[in-house]
Amino acid sequence: MLVVQKYGGTSVADADRIRHVAGRVMNRIRQGDQVIVVVSAMGDSTDDLIDLALQVAPDPDPRELDMLLSTGEQVSVALVAMALKTLGQEAVGLTGQQAGIIAQGLHNKGRISRVEADRVRRELDAGRVPVVAGYWGVNEAQEILTLGRGASDTTAVALAVALGAERCENCKDVEGVYTADPRIVPEARKLKDITYEEMLELATQGSTVMHNRAVELASVYNLPILVTSSMVEAPGTLIRQESELEERNRVRGIAHDTDVAKVTVRKVPDRPGIASNIFEPLAEAGISVDTIVQNSSEGDLTDLSFTMSRGDLRRAEGLMPAICASVGAPEYTSDANLGKVSIVGVGIQTAPGYAARMFRAMSDAGINIELISTSEIRLTCIIDSAKVPDAVRALHAAFQLETAE
Amino acid sequence: MLVVQKYGGTSVADADRIRHVAGRVMNRIRQGDQVIVVVSAMGDSTDDLIDLALQVAPDPDPRELDMLLSTGEQVSVALVAMALKTLGQEAVGLTGQQAGIIAQGLHNKGRISRVEADRVRRELDAGRVPVVAGYWGVNEAQEILTLGRGASDTTAVALAVALGAERCENCKDVEGVYTADPRIVPEARKLKDITYEEMLELATQGSTVMHNRAVELASVYNLPILVTSSMVEAPGTLIRQESELEERNRVRGIAHDTDVAKVTVRKVPDRPGIASNIFEPLAEAGISVDTIVQNSSEGDLTDLSFTMSRGDLRRAEGLMPAICASVGAPEYTSDANLGKVSIVGVGIQTAPGYAARMFRAMSDAGINIELISTSEIRLTCIIDSAKVPDAVRALHAAFQLETAE
Repeated sequence: MLVVQKYGGTSVADADRIRHVAGRVMNRIRQGDQVIVVVSAMGDSTDDLIDLALQVAPDPDPRELDMLLSTGEQVSVALVAMALKTLGQEAVGLTGQQAGIIAQGLHNKGRISRVEADRVRRELDAGRVPVVAGYWGVNEAQEILTLGRGASDTTAVALAVALGAERCENCKDVEGVYTADPRIVPEARKLKDITYEEMLELATQGSTVMHNRAVELASVYNLPILVTSSMVEAPGTLIRQESELEERNRVRGIAHDTDVAKVTVRKVPDRPGIASNIFEPLAEAGISVDTIVQNSSEGDLTDLSFTMSRGDLRRAEGLMPAICASVGAPEYTSDANLGKVSIVGVGIQTAPGYAARMFRAMSDAGINIELISTSEIRLTCIIDSAKVPDAVRALHAAFQLETAE
Repeated sequence: MLVVQKYGGTSVADADRIRHVAGRVMNRIRQGDQVIVVVSAMGDSTDDLIDLALQVAPDPDPRELDMLLSTGEQVSVALVAMALKTLGQEAVGLTGQQAGIIAQGLHNKGRISRVEADRVRRELDAGRVPVVAGYWGVNEAQEILTLGRGASDTTAVALAVALGAERCENCKDVEGVYTADPRIVPEARKLKDITYEEMLELATQGSTVMHNRAVELASVYNLPILVTSSMVEAPGTLIRQESELEERNRVRGIAHDTDVAKVTVRKVPDRPGIASNIFEPLAEAGISVDTIVQNSSEGDLTDLSFTMSRGDLRRAEGLMPAICASVGAPEYTSDANLGKVSIVGVGIQTAPGYAARMFRAMSDAGINIELISTSEIRLTCIIDSAKVPDAVRALHAAFQLETAE
């Protein structure tokens, strides 16, 4: 079968690991599979390049930043292809441009618009392993566009879809997706499979196993993704469409995030337009707001809370006096030391009892809930940051996630 | 006027120097000039990339090595363009491909075949400073070809020719071309100007100020090159066509090289074909032979000597027994500890007295001459490596090069 294997920065961090990756690809080929390899930049090299840019320019030009950062993946591509050839396997390193990754949009924020797969297919047909640079493509003017942090996953999925690969394998420094972070819950269990939607909620909520856009893209084309270890041979977690036959209404995992700050605008006159008056200035300042909760009104007044990363709080607070004035709110409060914990599973919102069990578990653990937010497959509590590990353990136990499926 | 300024690796070795380069380019633009910038990879980064490749593969694939090494210049290009924009100057970093540098030939040894200058011209017309990656281009299949060490100079000259620039400025960590290496001869004088031919002999013989192919290309198109410091403001050395009016027949400089090894094949039967029998196996082994001298025959036997870099001697010696057998020579000798010293100047070979003065100066300094070799504008003596500094000083004094022109 044809597979796309994507190796992240940790998996190609030095010469030893690059040779290990080459050996791993060889094993697959010996088993009769065809492999396309997608690689990220080595280890911390993208951060090192950003540091260098900031030394030269306090606010680096986005186009030139793309020109700079795209070299990181090109280095990996050349080295992995060399390592494969040294093992006697014909291979060819391909830049984002050579691999036909066509992107559009703004610099640093490109999106893949299509894949011109001729070159990659030609190399495959000639028996060469295409080793493709993740993370970037070119637009119609042949300008380099990077696709955002973590977007090498998206390159891999896009190539797999364009070439009709059977699946995409995301080879990482973890063995798969777990019911909770194993560093917090030692009993956390590796999931055999998970739906795209559950994966999206887990990733968004703090498990950084797989880039969101890659999961979304795979979901649209129903492309299975195997999350697996590049270091040890072990079964991974298969991300795939929900099976009609499987049992629904189960909590699949606990996600968490300890980096949450909250602002509450107090006593906002409850009339149309207040939400846009509050969130437009924040968006213009580039502050990414996460959860938004509007509490029940007291008479004509309502409280509106929203969360963000801690790093954005100071800038948000700078804007709040003007925002409060514009909506006629007398005051706002903020809290920088929050976190969140979520239970994730298809169907849990519509099924009775999950919310109650979650709140009971939190209460039994002595944890106060600041905000509650829900999606179709997720229930989230915003809590004191310091209580997050306790909450994850309490929920993992309450839903008996340590028990095999 | 339109100029191409080339900055070498030392000139862009860190963020401070890159900002300095940007400031220097700005100064030129404020004076009303149009500038195209060509840059090398930062400091030792090309060597670092080669080290990395050797860790991954003992004999890195040439195509992938080009893929790897070309990133070095791309990093510099992005950073210099960022630095210019931070100063308020519109600029655009261009890869070898985007700048239309079309190359042909083998990987690691590409040659520029033409420059498709449309993009660079368009950027200039729009008021943007094109910052172009030296050292590499792409072939017709859009594959990356590097042009050999030091070939960023050649990129700069090729761009200058293609765009009709008034001159190319090679901005370096030295202030120009000197009558001899100032580290050996403190009285060495910076030359105001020098012909292409003299520059070629000086460079080949050990002054590594400017890449040979760049000088040759400039000579064909009669493009003046100014060698100048990127660090201090000082007049440099102009490399240009010989002026009819100027005084010829002068020694312009002393070149030297302390890395010379010699092999002498003794008592070779003097018949057609012996030279090819000797040099073909060496060439096939990738050994670059420099000076070749066939001494006068004793009867039907001749001695044939040739020199190379010390690093090639061991491999050459490995081939010598077979070579001696194939030409019927009973033995060979070798010497690893030689150097060479040359006097360079247009017309000196045909003018009487220069050779005699050179040999007298060597004799007065007590230096034994092993081999003599000449070109139209050069006289070279191969001598004991340890004596090279004394020889350079003796010749500099004998030809009174410390005196102003």
